[in-house]
Amino acid sequence: MIHITRKEHFNAAHRLFRADWSDERNLQVFGKCSNPNWHGHNYTLYITVKGNANPETGFLMNLKDLSEIINKYIIDKVDHKNLNLEVDFMKNINPSTENIAIAIWNQIEKPISDKGAMLHAVKLEETENNFVEYYGNKEK
Amino acid sequence: MIHITRKEHFNAAHRLFRADWSDERNLQVFGKCSNPNWHGHNYTLYITVKGNANPETGFLMNLKDLSEIINKYIIDKVDHKNLNLEVDFMKNINPSTENIAIAIWNQIEKPISDKGAMLHAVKLEETENNFVEYYGNKEK
Amino acid sequence: MIHITRKEHFNAAHRLFRADWSDERNLQVFGKCSNPNWHGHNYTLYITVKGNANPETGFLMNLKDLSEIINKYIIDKVDHKNLNLEVDFMKNINPSTENIAIAIWNQIEKPISDKGAMLHAVKLEETENNFVEYYGNKEK
Amino acid sequence: MIHITRKEHFNAAHRLFRADWSDERNLQVFGKCSNPNWHGHNYTLYITVKGNANPETGFLMNLKDLSEIINKYIIDKVDHKNLNLEVDFMKNINPSTENIAIAIWNQIEKPISDKGAMLHAVKLEETENNFVEYYGNKEK
Amino acid sequence: MIHITRKEHFNAAHRLFRADWSDERNLQVFGKCSNPNWHGHNYTLYITVKGNANPETGFLMNLKDLSEIINKYIIDKVDHKNLNLEVDFMKNINPSTENIAIAIWNQIEKPISDKGAMLHAVKLEETENNFVEYYGNKEK
Amino acid sequence: MIHITRKEHFNAAHRLFRADWSDERNLQVFGKCSNPNWHGHNYTLYITVKGNANPETGFLMNLKDLSEIINKYIIDKVDHKNLNLEVDFMKNINPSTENIAIAIWNQIEKPISDKGAMLHAVKLEETENNFVEYYGNKEK
Repeated sequence: MIHITRKEHFNAAHRLFRADWSDERNLQVFGKCSNPNWHGHNYTLYITVKGNANPETGFLMNLKDLSEIINKYIIDKVDHKNLNLEVDFMKNINPSTENIAIAIWNQIEKPISDKGAMLHAVKLEETENNFVEYYGNKEK
Repeated sequence: MIHITRKEHFNAAHRLFRADWSDERNLQVFGKCSNPNWHGHNYTLYITVKGNANPETGFLMNLKDLSEIINKYIIDKVDHKNLNLEVDFMKNINPSTENIAIAIWNQIEKPISDKGAMLHAVKLEETENNFVEYYGNKEK
Repeated sequence: MIHITRKEHFNAAHRLFRADWSDERNLQVFGKCSNPNWHGHNYTLYITVKGNANPETGFLMNLKDLSEIINKYIIDKVDHKNLNLEVDFMKNINPSTENIAIAIWNQIEKPISDKGAMLHAVKLEETENNFVEYYGNKEK
Repeated sequence: MIHITRKEHFNAAHRLFRADWSDERNLQVFGKCSNPNWHGHNYTLYITVKGNANPETGFLMNLKDLSEIINKYIIDKVDHKNLNLEVDFMKNINPSTENIAIAIWNQIEKPISDKGAMLHAVKLEETENNFVEYYGNKEK
Repeated sequence: MIHITRKEHFNAAHRLFRADWSDERNLQVFGKCSNPNWHGHNYTLYITVKGNANPETGFLMNLKDLSEIINKYIIDKVDHKNLNLEVDFMKNINPSTENIAIAIWNQIEKPISDKGAMLHAVKLEETENNFVEYYGNKEK
Repeated sequence: MIHITRKEHFNAAHRLFRADWSDERNLQVFGKCSNPNWHGHNYTLYITVKGNANPETGFLMNLKDLSEIINKYIIDKVDHKNLNLEVDFMKNINPSTENIAIAIWNQIEKPISDKGAMLHAVKLEETENNFVEYYGNKEK
């Protein structure tokens, strides 16, 4: 069993807030990330799949296929978009880095398994100083 | 004469557009960067000053002073903000990377010269694949 | 369960040696890292915590809290310091990268669990070519 | 138990293809990576070993020893070489990133265990956008 | 006047040698870079253009146009190719980093000036430890 | 005329202070960088030379020669050393980044010109957030 990772990028606007909270509480919990006029990031996304290398090709999965899945299901929907307002799979989800990573997992797990590989990890960097990693329901 | 550079970061939302243009023309010229719901970036800012190292201290300029100027005049005003709506020195300026860099130069040139150094360059990275450099009115 | 990582930096001096060994043996085992006049590094520290994202906030842990813990218990004690002479939690410990990482784990495990998260990994880079990772007493 | 990682570099030429396939099929499966005139990469290699830090030295393994093993068994054989034509341990192996990583594991597992440590992971970056990780026969 | 830079990537095989020299002399001058079986690199290319920002758009040059020029005249011709055998603009040129950078300048200077900007610099990184910069016939 | 740059690394301890100043004044001017017990850095050094590419070889200067000069005159003298106590060319010089860069220029200018190239720039990074550049007595 081997792991292969593909890195992709997207730029997006977002704000952290709950509509059912007062402005004061949003500000207290989410700080400057709750700015009503939005802010944004260059997100870096690493998708790791695992499986056995095909003895015929030496490939676990063709990276072109993996990149196409990530672009079709994720990048095309989030790049240069507002994560709170415009992304179908983020509807009613507060776009914390944790929540975005989990939502990305749910979008691409099936398309990847349809290609015969297994999704292992979603790593999402929001700034150069923080990132989250999600491994599905598995304990790591 | 020697050059010293300080790197700082900020995250912001923006869109490229002109209010006096139709949506069609904005889209044609600015592409997905004109999304009315905003998008955003992790900007990386490099400020380079030049001058002679002080023979007593070996410093061209105390980097603590330089960092304080950049934070007071720039970072505090743009970090986690909307560059089109909330930044005094970007009022009525289309926030292309070029225009942001020029506006940053105009904000910090005097505070830096007040400390006895000379602003040499503003370098602003918008994504890992593009950046601008501005040297004031000098030809390079 | 999700993982979130915060990156911090510190600069410090150190030397590798044992007071109970001869200079020759120190030199033989630790090479130029045993220079009696010290040398130093820009250390990069990654602290990874794990747990479930709070359904109310979408946060596993507020990164501001995590950063404050790392700064209070580690960075404030080691930055611009001599790891052999000045750091309480390194007393009588040879400051190999392995030993520093383990000592950092022991400093921050409790403050992090007091905030309701679980420390998962300490990763410490000494140079761009080597780093250690420590997961506590767990086998990985 | 602790993990320590050493990073090394090599540059090499390769092509992906199977001699028993037609040119058309090679092109269809491997795309531009099957160019008969070769192409090449700057590969970045991370070797992670695990074990307990020696209480006398604070070292899991002397990094000088680890670097010597990696250079003797891998770098000296692949750097500035053609992976299809000139590397003994890649004979009759299609040099996909997956296959190179597995072959590297097989080369260095024993020399590392001879030094009292345990090979944990081989990570091989082919470009800045993709890398593989191999953990031996262990499930991760 | 402002500078804007676009970064692109390509992977290629090459060898340094002169057909009119003996193998011994090639080896003596070019070392392992003259390996007859080729080796290769991940090249990183930075193209810097200069000019005034258009007051209507805030753009010196549309980065989409710049990227299309670089891809059409350079990347499409060199990516996954052999620089000695397959690249029209490198015919009869020894592919040292210096010579590749100069040849790239000659390919894109006119297409860029046709778009109203001026080519300022070609920077080409061959490995993470060395790069060349070419500014045309200008002294810097 | 073309520029070529070689990157090298060293790790060293230092402190900023003047023996003829009181501890209070040293602390006031140099802050935590004046810690009497030292601190240290991973320095990254970029040496840029310029000249014409030799039409026979396509080289401005053999990078092996350039690397040997940098190692002989600089790296071997400063790596894993104390910049205040052990480096001949830093004797009686306060090791600010500015002063180290100027001293490095003075060490390698002649050996480089002896090889037929011209030293253009010394760039020295002290941390990931600050660096200096020195171009000799030339105005830039």
